[in-house]
Amino acid sequence: MGSLSDIGVAAGINILSALGFLLAFAVLRIQPINDRVYFPKWYLKGTRSSPRHLGTVFSKFVNADLSTYIRFLNWMPAALQMPEPELVEHAGLDSAVYVRIYLLGLKIFVPIAVLAFIVLVPVNWTSGTLENEKSLSYDQIDKLSISNLGKGSKRFWAHISMAYVFTFWTFYVLYREYKVITTMRLRFLANQNRRPDQFTVLVRNVPPDPDETVSEHVEHFFAVNHRDHYLSHQTVYNANTLAGLVENKKGLQNWLVYYENQYAKNPAKKPTMKTGLWGLWGERVDAIEYYKSAIEELCKQEDEERQKVITDPKAIMPAAFVSFKSRWGAAVCAQTQQTSNPTLWLTEWAPEPRDVYWPNLAIPYVELSVRRLIMAVALFFLTFFFMIPIAIVQSLANLDDIERLLPFLKPIIERNSLKAVVQGFLPGIALKIFLIVLPTILMIMSTIEGHTSLSGLNRRTASKYYLFLFVNVFLGSVITGTAFQQLNNFIHQSANKIPEIVGESIPMKATFFVTYVMVDGWAGVAAEVLRLKPLVMFHIKNAFLVRTEKDREEAMDPGSLNFGTTEPRIQLYFLLGLVYAVVTPILLPFIIVFFSLAYLVFRHQIINVYNQQYESAAQFWPDVQRRILIALIVSQILLMGLLSTQQAEKSTVVLLPLPVLSIWFHHVCKGRFEPAFIKLPLQDAMVKDTLERANDPTLNLREYLKDAYVHPVFHKNDMYELAAIDEEEKNPLVATRRRSRMNTLVDSKFNSSSGTTEGEFSRIPPP
Amino acid sequence: MGSLSDIGVAAGINILSALGFLLAFAVLRIQPINDRVYFPKWYLKGTRSSPRHLGTVFSKFVNADLSTYIRFLNWMPAALQMPEPELVEHAGLDSAVYVRIYLLGLKIFVPIAVLAFIVLVPVNWTSGTLENEKSLSYDQIDKLSISNLGKGSKRFWAHISMAYVFTFWTFYVLYREYKVITTMRLRFLANQNRRPDQFTVLVRNVPPDPDETVSEHVEHFFAVNHRDHYLSHQTVYNANTLAGLVENKKGLQNWLVYYENQYAKNPAKKPTMKTGLWGLWGERVDAIEYYKSAIEELCKQEDEERQKVITDPKAIMPAAFVSFKSRWGAAVCAQTQQTSNPTLWLTEWAPEPRDVYWPNLAIPYVELSVRRLIMAVALFFLTFFFMIPIAIVQSLANLDDIERLLPFLKPIIERNSLKAVVQGFLPGIALKIFLIVLPTILMIMSTIEGHTSLSGLNRRTASKYYLFLFVNVFLGSVITGTAFQQLNNFIHQSANKIPEIVGESIPMKATFFVTYVMVDGWAGVAAEVLRLKPLVMFHIKNAFLVRTEKDREEAMDPGSLNFGTTEPRIQLYFLLGLVYAVVTPILLPFIIVFFSLAYLVFRHQIINVYNQQYESAAQFWPDVQRRILIALIVSQILLMGLLSTQQAEKSTVVLLPLPVLSIWFHHVCKGRFEPAFIKLPLQDAMVKDTLERANDPTLNLREYLKDAYVHPVFHKNDMYELAAIDEEEKNPLVATRRRSRMNTLVDSKFNSSSGTTEGEFSRIPPP
Repeated sequence: MGSLSDIGVAAGINILSALGFLLAFAVLRIQPINDRVYFPKWYLKGTRSSPRHLGTVFSKFVNADLSTYIRFLNWMPAALQMPEPELVEHAGLDSAVYVRIYLLGLKIFVPIAVLAFIVLVPVNWTSGTLENEKSLSYDQIDKLSISNLGKGSKRFWAHISMAYVFTFWTFYVLYREYKVITTMRLRFLANQNRRPDQFTVLVRNVPPDPDETVSEHVEHFFAVNHRDHYLSHQTVYNANTLAGLVENKKGLQNWLVYYENQYAKNPAKKPTMKTGLWGLWGERVDAIEYYKSAIEELCKQEDEERQKVITDPKAIMPAAFVSFKSRWGAAVCAQTQQTSNPTLWLTEWAPEPRDVYWPNLAIPYVELSVRRLIMAVALFFLTFFFMIPIAIVQSLANLDDIERLLPFLKPIIERNSLKAVVQGFLPGIALKIFLIVLPTILMIMSTIEGHTSLSGLNRRTASKYYLFLFVNVFLGSVITGTAFQQLNNFIHQSANKIPEIVGESIPMKATFFVTYVMVDGWAGVAAEVLRLKPLVMFHIKNAFLVRTEKDREEAMDPGSLNFGTTEPRIQLYFLLGLVYAVVTPILLPFIIVFFSLAYLVFRHQIINVYNQQYESAAQFWPDVQRRILIALIVSQILLMGLLSTQQAEKSTVVLLPLPVLSIWFHHVCKGRFEPAFIKLPLQDAMVKDTLERANDPTLNLREYLKDAYVHPVFHKNDMYELAAIDEEEKNPLVATRRRSRMNTLVDSKFNSSSGTTEGEFSRIPPP
Repeated sequence: MGSLSDIGVAAGINILSALGFLLAFAVLRIQPINDRVYFPKWYLKGTRSSPRHLGTVFSKFVNADLSTYIRFLNWMPAALQMPEPELVEHAGLDSAVYVRIYLLGLKIFVPIAVLAFIVLVPVNWTSGTLENEKSLSYDQIDKLSISNLGKGSKRFWAHISMAYVFTFWTFYVLYREYKVITTMRLRFLANQNRRPDQFTVLVRNVPPDPDETVSEHVEHFFAVNHRDHYLSHQTVYNANTLAGLVENKKGLQNWLVYYENQYAKNPAKKPTMKTGLWGLWGERVDAIEYYKSAIEELCKQEDEERQKVITDPKAIMPAAFVSFKSRWGAAVCAQTQQTSNPTLWLTEWAPEPRDVYWPNLAIPYVELSVRRLIMAVALFFLTFFFMIPIAIVQSLANLDDIERLLPFLKPIIERNSLKAVVQGFLPGIALKIFLIVLPTILMIMSTIEGHTSLSGLNRRTASKYYLFLFVNVFLGSVITGTAFQQLNNFIHQSANKIPEIVGESIPMKATFFVTYVMVDGWAGVAAEVLRLKPLVMFHIKNAFLVRTEKDREEAMDPGSLNFGTTEPRIQLYFLLGLVYAVVTPILLPFIIVFFSLAYLVFRHQIINVYNQQYESAAQFWPDVQRRILIALIVSQILLMGLLSTQQAEKSTVVLLPLPVLSIWFHHVCKGRFEPAFIKLPLQDAMVKDTLERANDPTLNLREYLKDAYVHPVFHKNDMYELAAIDEEEKNPLVATRRRSRMNTLVDSKFNSSSGTTEGEFSRIPPP
């Protein structure tokens, strides 16, 4: 374990770099030119307009108001000011619950840290074992850890009792949080205005019928078996080709705009281009004409394809969105089995229209299970053997081999300075690239598994990524060596040896993880707020592609919380915190700082930046809870392993009830809360139906649902979405205090009307 | 491993004892006096009456017709003659499916045995390893086993490929069987006549309401949330005290009848008794008078208690049976979540009225999960540490200790012959007693877990018992030593060592298991058909308690298939067969003989003897399938372990896909078939509802369901059950070929009208 001063230096460096990021952010965000990078959410909501039209040309780009520089840290309290109900309304429940994960970290670890510093640190510190054994080289920081206790020391009882206290505290916080989230979700669903997915069920694996089309078959089936409740349905078209064409057209249009802009700036010179690959060779043509005709061609193709999809019976997939006359009817259909063959007529709640992952809607049941088997095997190999292909790539990148293969490069390679750089750089780069594309790989794997909603894909990706991080980052750091070597070791170790080995090296790795928390946690979060990539991309697009305000709108990349990749990283901190709480409590403050900073930053981001793609109403919470419990059980088992190497074997028996209790606690929570995340209770559906019938007896539901679940390529310009929102606004189910969103935000929350470029919002508390 | 002649001797002994049992059965069952012991099922169906009223007094008791002795094995083909659909109708689906387990064993193991004898036995036999190593003492039978192959032999590939073939064959048979059983279950449910449980849902955890009684609360809740479907409900009374009183009265009545019979035989002497404990001391009184007054007293108490239960609001449990206007409504309610708190208003299909386990209906959700935790821990200790209390009891039973404690017994104990007997006998008896009461202990544990139906209790008991048998019989026999020692070993062994240790000793234990199959399997099944205990009990009761035909009816103890204890034993044979199929195929014929004999015997028993307590429509099949798959996976892992000790490590990699495939196969089957055993599809419900509405538009369902779910102590003389059956008979939903049960059986299946006492039934095949 490193010395205190080592850690001090590392902390200093990381604090400085984190501060650097934050400072850069503070300066960049108040420049008017960056306004759309750091406040896209408000632009998308329509409550903030470009500040550029005020003042001089200079002040359009650079903020010259010095007073705002003095208040450059104002965003931090501002991020905390918006109360949670408003946050839910503003950013959606998914985001609001997501930042609560960080808060949950604080709730768990602050009391644990306090207790650990009051009880465990003195107990460790006053044990003189390391001092007495002169042969060992030790450091002050080791005296704070469990290593300072001698073998078989009676003081281990303090750690054992603390393990119990920490476990029960974690249970308590987790249970309360689960309860709160469940309530929030149910209230959110209950308060939601009328939405198409409340009335709609996704039906998959419609069996083929020789006499009827899919559409007729669906209609007859539900008209018979849900006689009093069936309303209408929408068949699903296989529009993947069409979607590809639309995507292509968008790319060509970008180029067209680029050349048109060039031409507008410099009308003397007509822009030209080569038609070959990447514009490197081929005939030189007029670029604007070329793209115009290409787009025209594509439009024609698109229309043909659209016609083909609509008329060709083969383009209809054996799936449908079936809508019901009432929420009760939909809830019943989603939760029940329809036929005696449980692989046909599979019903589930329809995801939100924008949450649907269209390409996966038509996979038959048997194929699904084969795909899942293959992906499970693939995940296993990816997790434990990912080093093998990387090692091969690395050996290919060996300079001597390159010299042999490509002798003409020899003079360049032989230069010493270059050689050193490449030799030092190349072996790492394959690994880096792999780690960057890993989330994408995992996402593709989840897609292959055949989930039908984006939120589901994200949740599955998170599970896979967590496994990878747990094996390769946590275990891989504790016991040095690749995951494959560990797997090999573990198979050849006895069942009680594994926790012993891992547990024994846990205290020695504390310094490493402290550094990890600072680099990955502190600096990473600070980098998140700076949004370097969107910043650069926005300015590039702005320079070349933007003509109108609408273009500028599209050039913004608000991004979104990426549950699949960010949540498993948070879980890693939970794991570290729980594992080290008893062993080396000195790690806890670092984790607490991470959670606080991340809470602040992400709360700011969801208020000002991110624009979620979908709203799953916090459906991911059971996964979060489960993974924290896994971390808790791992920490308990490792503590047992550690203590059994310290000649305190009896203590492992005393600790044995902890994992049993944790597993039981998991089952209790699962039974108590999880159904609320999967099923919609009939009572709630009935209440909403009754209210609606009283408030709006003339509602034409069929008209309302007509186009809700049409494949997005059949919509033009997302008209549908706006229409749906309009309807919501006009017909609130229950009269709320909430006024039309636009006005509310402009008036009460956001002082953009005052014309300052500061961008802080001074919230007027609701009366 | 023993020699061939050893096995021959053991086989001879066991075949002789099994034949002895069968012979005794063949002779005993054609004696008129035993008719009610061996054919109770037909008496209960009302299709067979006492044969005693024919012929002389002598022929009332003993069968003098010598020709029937010659045909004494006739029962065997007769047992096979009844075709399956008729068997389902006669004995219920549970029983018919239960005997299919034995058939499944034959389907799996006959082809495997043939293939093993064609391929593996020659491969093993022609390997000369054991002959070459002169130092080893070996036997002919070892040459048939895998032990005859030398380390690292190429011939192991034969075994590996056979492991694949056997696995895929097992998959195929299991999949087909699951499909057949599912179809049988669905057809059975579809063909069933109107039954109360089709319309009824069991609701538990009704929340307390300050203003309403439980009954009102239930009514209001369902009238609102299942507005169009709710019909009526039946609250559940806590009648456990009352049930105890009824039970007591029955005991006293038996004694009264006994004394009255005594008096009738010997009118000169009025029977007397002492009132003290066990009639050993106390005042001597007139026995008949005494019991008459005691019964009168009890009747009074019973009436009071009955009044109290009905009027006291505290006796109403927070549970209810809620009935719906249609099967569709009940299916919806059973499969959906009612409120946002998933621990309240829990709904599930109501079990059959006679399947309900009344005392468990009122356990709150949290208590349930605590109970399950405690029982899981208890099961763990019972399985792994059961030897400890038995060892203590055994040491208490040590004669020297007894001498020291009770010196006056010394002269008796010191006698050598007695000492030898006791010393040899006592240590075993504690274990024997434990093993006899074990199923009861497990049943009590399942009861504490709080399942609400008898069938559920039986299924849970079977799971527990299987774990016990697997650990203590299978593993305990393979690696000698108590389960606790094994647990200790296993914790300290590496993950890949455990299958190696077990796998390595597998071939050596083949002889032991051959003997086990013969003793427990062959002789055990033959003893089952003899029904020694019911035989003795019937004659005792007949001698002392029977006055009327009705008494005689009650004295019969038809017994029933006890799924909880018998199914796990069958599973043990599947396990042995699958494990030894590749290793020592010589075991397979013994297992095949067991399965054939058992199939024969149990088919005979369910036709002629057993009277099932309830009908769960084969709901246990998913458990059967799961346990066979567990056995398959165990066999694959043990084979991997065995081969890795034979210096064929690479082969373990080749075998690795097998367990992965097996787990995947389990998931596929589960997804494909299991819902049919848990949920009722809405389509099926709708079809039956529609048919019923067309056939019987005037049905008064409320009247029909009025008393269906009343606690049995409130019924007098099971009137209800007969009434329900009557109604079924009178109103068949779909006209079937089946005539009224009584006539059918008398006419077509049973020639009792011909007056012979033979008891064979000559079935007239349906036209």
